[in-house]
Amino acid sequence: MTATRPPTAPAVATRPTISLDSYRSRLSGAHALMDQRGVDALLVGVGADLRYLTGDVAMPLERLTMLVLVRGGSDRLIVPRLEAMPAGRSPAGAGRLVEIVAWRETEDPHALVAGFVRNAVGDAPRIGVSDTLWASHLLAFQAHLPGARFEPGSGVTRELRIVKDADEIALLRLAAEAADRVVAQIAGGPLVGRTEAAVAREVRDRLVAEGHDDAAFSIVASGPNSASPHHEASDRVIRAGDPIVLDIGGSLAGYASDITRTLWVTGGQPTNGPDPEYVAIFELVREAQRAATDAVRPGVTAESLDALARGVIGAGGHGDGFIHRLGHGIGLEGHEHPYLVEGDATELRPGMAFSIEPGIYLEGRHGVRLEDIVAVGADGPMVLNRAPLDLMVVSG
Amino acid sequence: MTATRPPTAPAVATRPTISLDSYRSRLSGAHALMDQRGVDALLVGVGADLRYLTGDVAMPLERLTMLVLVRGGSDRLIVPRLEAMPAGRSPAGAGRLVEIVAWRETEDPHALVAGFVRNAVGDAPRIGVSDTLWASHLLAFQAHLPGARFEPGSGVTRELRIVKDADEIALLRLAAEAADRVVAQIAGGPLVGRTEAAVAREVRDRLVAEGHDDAAFSIVASGPNSASPHHEASDRVIRAGDPIVLDIGGSLAGYASDITRTLWVTGGQPTNGPDPEYVAIFELVREAQRAATDAVRPGVTAESLDALARGVIGAGGHGDGFIHRLGHGIGLEGHEHPYLVEGDATELRPGMAFSIEPGIYLEGRHGVRLEDIVAVGADGPMVLNRAPLDLMVVSG
Repeated sequence: MTATRPPTAPAVATRPTISLDSYRSRLSGAHALMDQRGVDALLVGVGADLRYLTGDVAMPLERLTMLVLVRGGSDRLIVPRLEAMPAGRSPAGAGRLVEIVAWRETEDPHALVAGFVRNAVGDAPRIGVSDTLWASHLLAFQAHLPGARFEPGSGVTRELRIVKDADEIALLRLAAEAADRVVAQIAGGPLVGRTEAAVAREVRDRLVAEGHDDAAFSIVASGPNSASPHHEASDRVIRAGDPIVLDIGGSLAGYASDITRTLWVTGGQPTNGPDPEYVAIFELVREAQRAATDAVRPGVTAESLDALARGVIGAGGHGDGFIHRLGHGIGLEGHEHPYLVEGDATELRPGMAFSIEPGIYLEGRHGVRLEDIVAVGADGPMVLNRAPLDLMVVSG
Repeated sequence: MTATRPPTAPAVATRPTISLDSYRSRLSGAHALMDQRGVDALLVGVGADLRYLTGDVAMPLERLTMLVLVRGGSDRLIVPRLEAMPAGRSPAGAGRLVEIVAWRETEDPHALVAGFVRNAVGDAPRIGVSDTLWASHLLAFQAHLPGARFEPGSGVTRELRIVKDADEIALLRLAAEAADRVVAQIAGGPLVGRTEAAVAREVRDRLVAEGHDDAAFSIVASGPNSASPHHEASDRVIRAGDPIVLDIGGSLAGYASDITRTLWVTGGQPTNGPDPEYVAIFELVREAQRAATDAVRPGVTAESLDALARGVIGAGGHGDGFIHRLGHGIGLEGHEHPYLVEGDATELRPGMAFSIEPGIYLEGRHGVRLEDIVAVGADGPMVLNRAPLDLMVVSG
């Protein structure tokens, strides 16, 4: 069936680097959105928003690291003193797009940030805070700035991050292809007689060997465990005659991979193959995945893709078995906007990227899921994975 | 010098498991503290607090997973429907200590939680939220419960988590000893001619091989990079005549390891050894580390240990070079209460555990740091690491 698959994105020769100009335009884009929406300050803690805007990759710890953007003011990156050297070497630090301000161990960094905000935009500002900032930090800012109104910073950053540029799509593509190779390697076995946990460890090692910085998750759900969408790889031993839902990913140069394929292991005995009922639910999931992928184009809404896939599976009599949304955006985070779910009316634009991953789960028996990462092209879908969407019947 | 080291904790034969009774008493301990302090509800998102109270290990994602404790009410674990099976298998779920409540993809989980809180404790409760809960979740709760007063949940959970029981100390001990072995393996070389990043990857692989679930960090700071306390392992090639600050750790069965040793690589040439000035700052750091460790006993304050070590280094003329706190608590998180820093007046109690890690950093030149994990015993320190605290002069 691969001959009729939607177009895949172009091959990527070398791993791109996000340029200083990109960081500069991201920061000015954030300021433009703040002006447009009346957000007076944007407080960005460690995480994907910070990496997106500055290239700084810090660990989320109790010591406050924070990009502070204020309307009409210059941009500062507040860091603990012992992080000053790495922050200064980050793209935005080294490129002097932000001023590095180091605080000492006995200073109160929340008071420092609150002071910058108050001096620039007064006592009653509207403040966006990055969505993944720790509650302890937000509560401290609320205490220091009792007149401020706080809101999720994604009101600004989502708009920027939701559309990927060519370099970002290329990085997502490289991550997707690395995950494709790991799926093929795992399907080559051995599987029968090994625990799910052992296979999951192999997946993680292989993702790193294929260029990932980290392997964030590795779902190996065999036999009846395949009926649990977020099954943790367990000590269950894989047997001939098992289905396996393999859902793996991590990140490569910061950009996430996420692929699901469904395998069936026969142990080399054709009589251990999938029964017709399992094949039927697999085909229904594949049909739903394909229909939603084919429908991807600018102007279509995120929720309409979910409804389309849900309609296919419902018409096949398994609507109750499709217990999760169709998909999630992907980029610097494994899950980000847009979400392919009822209630997300985001209109697709070229450069958006997300998973399309319908599934059917029959509790106590088994399940099926299929997932590709798909980017929105100028007039249709661009599939970033290359692995075939077949039921992978393998000896195991 | 090891003969005069403070006592190490007893050896651990097998890896302990946290019992159902422990989870039961942790949950009832949280309720007792809530009653005592007038906290009406405790909302615990994914993270160390959740693992501590329920054993549930979930990934922090945008879908809300939350333990909801209300005064006078039963305990609920709110989970996305597709996480219901793993949550039901968590210790507190399987042991029926908490009721699992699954929400569907199109439900608003914040409204669901707010409803539970309002029904149990009214419209104007005091609510603790776990410190690492995402700001986006806290903002949603603040919108749903405008009459509530929110505060850091560590007001309740710190008190419980700060004192480790025997099983927890045993797990910290196992993690520390695994990290000790990795330090010895790395010191065995090869080091000269390899990049810091390559050595850091080897550290991570070895931590996992020694039983860690994950290797959260691996600082390999060579030559002038040793002057940056949180240096990221870089492409710098290690040379004979370099000092290396090696600061590594991760977690084993959920409990964190964290050790720092300082190496000097000679490439086999004694003439490449450390100069007397470097040896002098090393000895000063060792003296400070030892003095603080020896002073550990119940009743002493966290900040007094910092002051003690700072006094030693200051008296040696390098007070300006000791630019970070002396240490941090350790347990299910790599950094947790108490903090050995000016301003943390926590009185030590038996079962507390923390790092003691003084350092001296001479910018542009080099640095030294030494770190052990130390638990508070009934009448003195119990050092969890066994690796000698010497300057490790190695061929590399």
